[in-house]
Amino acid sequence: MKARIYVTLKNGVLDPQGQAIEGALGALGFDGIASVRQGKVFDIELADGADADARLKRMCEKLLANTVIEDFRVETLGASA
Amino acid sequence: MKARIYVTLKNGVLDPQGQAIEGALGALGFDGIASVRQGKVFDIELADGADADARLKRMCEKLLANTVIEDFRVETLGASA
Repeated sequence: MKARIYVTLKNGVLDPQGQAIEGALGALGFDGIASVRQGKVFDIELADGADADARLKRMCEKLLANTVIEDFRVETLGASA
Repeated sequence: MKARIYVTLKNGVLDPQGQAIEGALGALGFDGIASVRQGKVFDIELADGADADARLKRMCEKLLANTVIEDFRVETLGASA
């Protein structure tokens, strides 16, 4: 099965990378940008199984996300083609 | 309005960071991982406007994505709250 995991900074956590992108967009002439925040996305292909959702959640908690400052969301995309 | 932009490596482009994560997940005892690929996500808040979609596309082409090796997808999330 395939899964997509989104890891984004929690609200209120400073995002200097996002601010740098916001500044760069302004320098390129893009006006009206109120904020930019950057996150990560992981596309994972893993063995099917009834416990896949629980396994993906554990992967996020143990490795993919820093749950002190980051939120994560798991989206399963169904069986592998 | 708010928009979310996904930037992912094109198929066939080597992803050493994804491979490192795959190895780390295996070392943590997660079996059956067939592949991991990492991408980026940008949450952008920008001024409303009829040309917002076109502006977001140009931001991707000029700054956010390297279109030689990366694909991007823009999702608009509607007006700001």
